[in-house]
Amino acid sequence: MSTGTSGANAASTTAVEVPRGLKGVVVTETGIGDVRGGAGFYHYRQYSAVDLAKNRPVEDVWRLLIDGELPAAALERVAFCDEIRPLFAIPKATADALPAIARTTRHPLNGLRTALSMAAEERGCRPVYDLKPQERRADALFVAAVTPTILTALHRLRTGQQPVGPRDDLDYAANYLWMLTGREPSDAHAAAIRRYLISTIDHGFNASTFTARVIASTGADMGACIVGAIGALSGPLHGGAPSRALDLLNEIGEASRARAVVAGKVTRGERIMGFGHAVYTTKDPRSEMLKETAQGLGGPLADLAVEVEQTVVDVLAELKPGRHLYANVEFYAGVVMALCGVPPEMFTPTFASSRVIGWSANVLEQAEDPKIIRPSARYVGPPPPQPVPEFSEA
Amino acid sequence: MSTGTSGANAASTTAVEVPRGLKGVVVTETGIGDVRGGAGFYHYRQYSAVDLAKNRPVEDVWRLLIDGELPAAALERVAFCDEIRPLFAIPKATADALPAIARTTRHPLNGLRTALSMAAEERGCRPVYDLKPQERRADALFVAAVTPTILTALHRLRTGQQPVGPRDDLDYAANYLWMLTGREPSDAHAAAIRRYLISTIDHGFNASTFTARVIASTGADMGACIVGAIGALSGPLHGGAPSRALDLLNEIGEASRARAVVAGKVTRGERIMGFGHAVYTTKDPRSEMLKETAQGLGGPLADLAVEVEQTVVDVLAELKPGRHLYANVEFYAGVVMALCGVPPEMFTPTFASSRVIGWSANVLEQAEDPKIIRPSARYVGPPPPQPVPEFSEA
Repeated sequence: MSTGTSGANAASTTAVEVPRGLKGVVVTETGIGDVRGGAGFYHYRQYSAVDLAKNRPVEDVWRLLIDGELPAAALERVAFCDEIRPLFAIPKATADALPAIARTTRHPLNGLRTALSMAAEERGCRPVYDLKPQERRADALFVAAVTPTILTALHRLRTGQQPVGPRDDLDYAANYLWMLTGREPSDAHAAAIRRYLISTIDHGFNASTFTARVIASTGADMGACIVGAIGALSGPLHGGAPSRALDLLNEIGEASRARAVVAGKVTRGERIMGFGHAVYTTKDPRSEMLKETAQGLGGPLADLAVEVEQTVVDVLAELKPGRHLYANVEFYAGVVMALCGVPPEMFTPTFASSRVIGWSANVLEQAEDPKIIRPSARYVGPPPPQPVPEFSEA
Repeated sequence: MSTGTSGANAASTTAVEVPRGLKGVVVTETGIGDVRGGAGFYHYRQYSAVDLAKNRPVEDVWRLLIDGELPAAALERVAFCDEIRPLFAIPKATADALPAIARTTRHPLNGLRTALSMAAEERGCRPVYDLKPQERRADALFVAAVTPTILTALHRLRTGQQPVGPRDDLDYAANYLWMLTGREPSDAHAAAIRRYLISTIDHGFNASTFTARVIASTGADMGACIVGAIGALSGPLHGGAPSRALDLLNEIGEASRARAVVAGKVTRGERIMGFGHAVYTTKDPRSEMLKETAQGLGGPLADLAVEVEQTVVDVLAELKPGRHLYANVEFYAGVVMALCGVPPEMFTPTFASSRVIGWSANVLEQAEDPKIIRPSARYVGPPPPQPVPEFSEA
């Protein structure tokens, strides 16, 4: 029997009380990864995400998330790269529409929302429950491959430049910088952005991943799921603004001013952007790795960041004792991206580029468990039914 | 302090166990409406939705959902209509892009996903938490007003016709049929589609409404929230396929064949589309009203539907005793829409057109309670950390 076009909560079922915002509520089981906040550790499948970021290209980790295994040897890596390479190209009608989309785009993530929605439909992504696993997998690879191409093309169009297409001879990370800047990146820059991209592919269960899975639970197509997740990531409470931490560095300007600026902010009750995390009670492992990466690249900005970080930690320890606040992923992410030539307005979009890999892996996992996610709400308004008032034409 | 760019679940927090798919889990309080499945009743604020559908235009119910009150007199109704009228127009760049979007659109709802995403960005919808209530309300009115114009324009473009713009002298319901068909509808058709549209504005907490609220909980803009909800509605387990019930009527063809066709299907274990509901254990109040509406319009299709409904109920009572299966909203919705000249591929989009009013009201409510919705998942894969294997170049 059909269950109707609209699922509602039955007032007659027993209501289950849970913490606000579903905090700590286990919605699903996952084999994709997890975060151990107290241990300062997070992982993709059975591997430390930081170890992966330091030792493998994006493509290997992408395959790990989608297929469950790292390529063990060159042949497997090549086979996966051959499979994804053609998917980086933007489908023709969507590519033709990009200039118009770029002209209306105020925030690159919202332009991606439109263009990826169109590209997924042009490709013919179909409802996940109607597809065989291999067909779903192909749609998952497509959305993750086309996203960096769309994002960098939109950026170039919005800044008066022609899009630069993907190159077959560059890996994902080097290609990202190539498509963004139109210049072949140095090995050091490619390696640095590679670490950043891998470290942001997934991070436990978060609001955008959950959004993708709720949409997938209705059986909607991969495009619908990812477009919804992009929307959630665009929210200030989620995707944040990684450029804010860089703004702090620019405001401080030189290390000698750090203590005065930071102490002034803390005393005035202002937020210090890039410090503290809801989950990590120790140092943020992403921040630690990106700090090392920034130091490897070197230069005045990296030096300033290291000095400011130490100053902030010291000032916070003095003025807010017992809080144990450390630099979070935002702080050094902005530094690394800036050092690699990524403009601040592309910080969150660059994050989205890699996170699509995590979202699409989550959609594939959700599609294996065809049960709609549909909680309840409690009605607290005036009791019905009141008679509908007569309408006065007077 | 910033909480970082990605919220994760803390492994250290206590996990809360809940039913699969969050069934019965109370996520939020709402003053918008509810469903009482056992009583065959649902309501918008304090009024029976069916009473509203029978006695008020779409505009009045729209105002009820957004502002909390029905217009009490003509002046209030006129003021609301004056406010929404200019919002029906598609912003220029989006209107210019519609032919290209239409060419890539396989399913009208997916074309809406793209076009509404673009329109919201062109209008400049901003993060809901950054806006004053009146600014958020303006964005809510915009997305709901522009949706029917986009949907009908996409339909006409996809079927080789020029879009027909909204008319100031028609109400929402009559305008919908005008923009869809290019013909001014009869009063009877306008009244029938008006009832359908009002009856589908909201229906308790469902997967698309929940999606809109999860995205809103990150502070994302109204466009992001509604585009995500459209994606959820496009899932076969949610938006369904109201045209399937009409397919059944076409297959039966004439009343005398109803018993044989239906009994054959039930005996073979096939699903009878348009019957049974997850929530209503009595008759579906939407179905009852739409049956009356179809009978009021009259004609062979309406007569056939009434006879088939009775036959299906009888056959199911005989072959599946004790199940109490009745026609759900899909059954007569398809009949009413077909009688009003809505083509089957526009059945679910027509549903989406009115449901955007409900979604946007839910986003406004969510935005009053700025707390991110972020549940947890339990990791069940191989235990980390395993060493990242050496890569063999062989």
